[in-house]
Amino acid sequence: MKLGEIVARLGGELIGPADAEATRIVPLDRAGPDEIAFVSGPKHARLLDTTEAGALILGPDLRDATSRPRIVCVNPYAYFARVSALLHPVPTHGAGVDPAAMVMHSAEVHSSASIGAGATVGKGAHIGAGAVVESGARVGEGTVIGADCHLHANAVVYHSCVLGNRVVLHSGAVIGADGFGVAMDEGRWVKIPQVGRVVLGDDVEIGANSTVDRGTLDDTVIEEGVKIDNQVQIGHNCRIGAHTAIAACAGIAGSTRVGRRCRIGGAAMIQGHIDICDDVVVSAATAIMKSILRPGTYTSIYPFQEHRHWIRNAAHLRHMDALAKQLKALEKRLLELEGKRP
Amino acid sequence: MKLGEIVARLGGELIGPADAEATRIVPLDRAGPDEIAFVSGPKHARLLDTTEAGALILGPDLRDATSRPRIVCVNPYAYFARVSALLHPVPTHGAGVDPAAMVMHSAEVHSSASIGAGATVGKGAHIGAGAVVESGARVGEGTVIGADCHLHANAVVYHSCVLGNRVVLHSGAVIGADGFGVAMDEGRWVKIPQVGRVVLGDDVEIGANSTVDRGTLDDTVIEEGVKIDNQVQIGHNCRIGAHTAIAACAGIAGSTRVGRRCRIGGAAMIQGHIDICDDVVVSAATAIMKSILRPGTYTSIYPFQEHRHWIRNAAHLRHMDALAKQLKALEKRLLELEGKRP
Amino acid sequence: MKLGEIVARLGGELIGPADAEATRIVPLDRAGPDEIAFVSGPKHARLLDTTEAGALILGPDLRDATSRPRIVCVNPYAYFARVSALLHPVPTHGAGVDPAAMVMHSAEVHSSASIGAGATVGKGAHIGAGAVVESGARVGEGTVIGADCHLHANAVVYHSCVLGNRVVLHSGAVIGADGFGVAMDEGRWVKIPQVGRVVLGDDVEIGANSTVDRGTLDDTVIEEGVKIDNQVQIGHNCRIGAHTAIAACAGIAGSTRVGRRCRIGGAAMIQGHIDICDDVVVSAATAIMKSILRPGTYTSIYPFQEHRHWIRNAAHLRHMDALAKQLKALEKRLLELEGKRP
Repeated sequence: MKLGEIVARLGGELIGPADAEATRIVPLDRAGPDEIAFVSGPKHARLLDTTEAGALILGPDLRDATSRPRIVCVNPYAYFARVSALLHPVPTHGAGVDPAAMVMHSAEVHSSASIGAGATVGKGAHIGAGAVVESGARVGEGTVIGADCHLHANAVVYHSCVLGNRVVLHSGAVIGADGFGVAMDEGRWVKIPQVGRVVLGDDVEIGANSTVDRGTLDDTVIEEGVKIDNQVQIGHNCRIGAHTAIAACAGIAGSTRVGRRCRIGGAAMIQGHIDICDDVVVSAATAIMKSILRPGTYTSIYPFQEHRHWIRNAAHLRHMDALAKQLKALEKRLLELEGKRP
Repeated sequence: MKLGEIVARLGGELIGPADAEATRIVPLDRAGPDEIAFVSGPKHARLLDTTEAGALILGPDLRDATSRPRIVCVNPYAYFARVSALLHPVPTHGAGVDPAAMVMHSAEVHSSASIGAGATVGKGAHIGAGAVVESGARVGEGTVIGADCHLHANAVVYHSCVLGNRVVLHSGAVIGADGFGVAMDEGRWVKIPQVGRVVLGDDVEIGANSTVDRGTLDDTVIEEGVKIDNQVQIGHNCRIGAHTAIAACAGIAGSTRVGRRCRIGGAAMIQGHIDICDDVVVSAATAIMKSILRPGTYTSIYPFQEHRHWIRNAAHLRHMDALAKQLKALEKRLLELEGKRP
Repeated sequence: MKLGEIVARLGGELIGPADAEATRIVPLDRAGPDEIAFVSGPKHARLLDTTEAGALILGPDLRDATSRPRIVCVNPYAYFARVSALLHPVPTHGAGVDPAAMVMHSAEVHSSASIGAGATVGKGAHIGAGAVVESGARVGEGTVIGADCHLHANAVVYHSCVLGNRVVLHSGAVIGADGFGVAMDEGRWVKIPQVGRVVLGDDVEIGANSTVDRGTLDDTVIEEGVKIDNQVQIGHNCRIGAHTAIAACAGIAGSTRVGRRCRIGGAAMIQGHIDICDDVVVSAATAIMKSILRPGTYTSIYPFQEHRHWIRNAAHLRHMDALAKQLKALEKRLLELEGKRP
């Protein structure tokens, strides 16, 4: 693709020949003469002198930091994402229902949708225009799949759920399984029926083997534009605010509300029945056990060290209160020695 | 359903007209005149004055706290679970093997069982009366599925496992994969064959994408009534005692025994080769690294705070031992100043 | 199998009759006269006097600790693994494509490979000699599966990935889903296409419901002999060195390099964009937030205790810096009292 063509489609200012070709997008340190690379952050900027990239995507601050052909834009990282999408178009799936797909008679499948071999579409389900349901994906009874959704192989949506438009479910994602609701009664657990739904907004993407449980009485709701990585668990009755991103292995327990534009780090764990306000960043491997009412970054990581050092230091954590009391007592005695009243 | 009918089936004392209708069960704060709500805990009790619910389920202590039609029972939460099951019957699956199911000739499928399109039942497997094996679920060679079990879409049970009656496996659950057994030999891992089975007791429920590994030589055993949430991992040769509940994202490493009636919190991690006695509660996000011999609640959560505060405080954890020694030394010098022998 | 036959195949020194039979391999404390058991570590050694095993596998140090028939070898645990494999041969899968498998015309399937009912092999994919693709497993377009690989039921490999020889994927494993790459632009996430591949070396084994993401521009690489347990997440662009073992529920974030022969504990969490050198052991439940440059064992476990003790002790962690400062101030005042200059 020619640089001029890229700028014509995506905007930005081209400095250099419009007919220069960019065949691939490649990391800055390995890009060659017919490849394009992006520059984002000081680590990249330092490589500008030595790169052999045929063209660069960079911000206004680096506009004159190189003489190579370049596209100047406000957000080089997002621009890179868009160029990459231009250069690597998503493979198309031919419209139609594969003869080896299993579609119930009462289901409605748009004529432009693609249902793969071995996929199942339940009674009364609705598959929107341009949607792709790959091999082995399961769409439950009465579930609505919006336009241009993409259910990768072996993704599962239980009955009565609703997916907006352009929702992507990666393989092994399970949407709408029963929430974990049990009541103890005379020494045995009684199951609480989970009769709510899962509602996913437009442009939600859910990673491989992630799970979003259906609500107990109400719905579990993931608002538009939320991006969820692999192996994330969202409990029943949660509401995740628009444009929040949740990294892999995080878990959010039931009935918790997470605000808009939050970023939840990998392997973070968020307690149930709490509120996280908008614009909160939760660090990786952090446990959030109560509500957060102010935007900011929150962390609870135990710092690692060599095991032989850890073992000596960690033991004291079981006696922190005694240690603090001892300190207070010393202070008091010191005051007395100093002739002051404690 | 009429209130009188509910009490006739489930017990409890009805105060109010037997022919009042409850069409749905709805949270207390949103229930309307033809809906029933349950009252459990002080938060609910405070809403009693303002609710518009047509009927209430409550405990003997709140018997006279409202004049609305009500069912008085010992355990309102469990009662709610049972009412909800009455009002929301589980959808039935027609008996029979779908023409698109793949059942080996030597498998035995009870005539009242339901095998969905695209499901697989291996050689010599046995599917009990009333069991449901949904689309894409896999039952391995020689595996026994008890009566009224329900394998949701794409659940997998490997060969030679045994499920009791009324076991529920949610989508993506994998029962009986190889335990993680390797021996190091001259710089390479040698695989240790995993030839035990998984045995699941009656009324076990296992959440979406959870995994229970088969034993190395012996079996992995989950006793009756155990409830396991999503994305839980149970290692090989574990035994989980009856009526224990395990919340999402928890992991229990191999050869560990967990007692009866335990409650394991979400994202908790339990070391291998240890014993947890009966009636232990493990908090969410807690790591249990050695055996627990007394019932109680155990916790190891690092408290979160704003990142800029965390970073100053956490650094000291690497030097706790030095800090404690410093404190001891101060104490000694203080004793000397005070004219006492340390 | 006769002991003489075992030694003829696997080496080691037999002390006792060559024609003694070992029908099964059983734990030392339960083995009977026609069974063989292995002895590894002091706990086992103590059972030597009381075992009723018909034969034993033990190291040179215990050569004379028993008079029972025995095989003396350098590494009894690895020897046990090999004997177990002899006694429990992996069930064979008949070669050929099941009539209910869905293989695209342009795919190449070796005549000795086995493709199960309901499995899918995409366009241009290549399935090597002796490979097994079980029911419901999905092989994406252009993906290469090496010789003697085993994809268990419902395992998924996306398009354009490469598996070496003898790779095992357990059920629900997802190889090659999109890495978590998004760029924030004007309040919305823009997806960064993930156009790299996943490359798995020879003899890699990946547990049930584990996920390995494809690279953004480059590949995600798991080198030969790596063993990965269940529910492990490997982010995009990671490289995992040969013969490393990763226990269940661990997560490794994107672009991190883990060295050779490392052992990553269960539920460990490793930050993205860092380097872990060769021969590092990461303890279970440990968070590694920066690069590790020296071999050794590293830990960050918060020690658990009874909840009522924990709650008093943990609160101080939010004020560690103040506590350390207080200690320093006391020291200074003490020095003054002692008549020394601080």
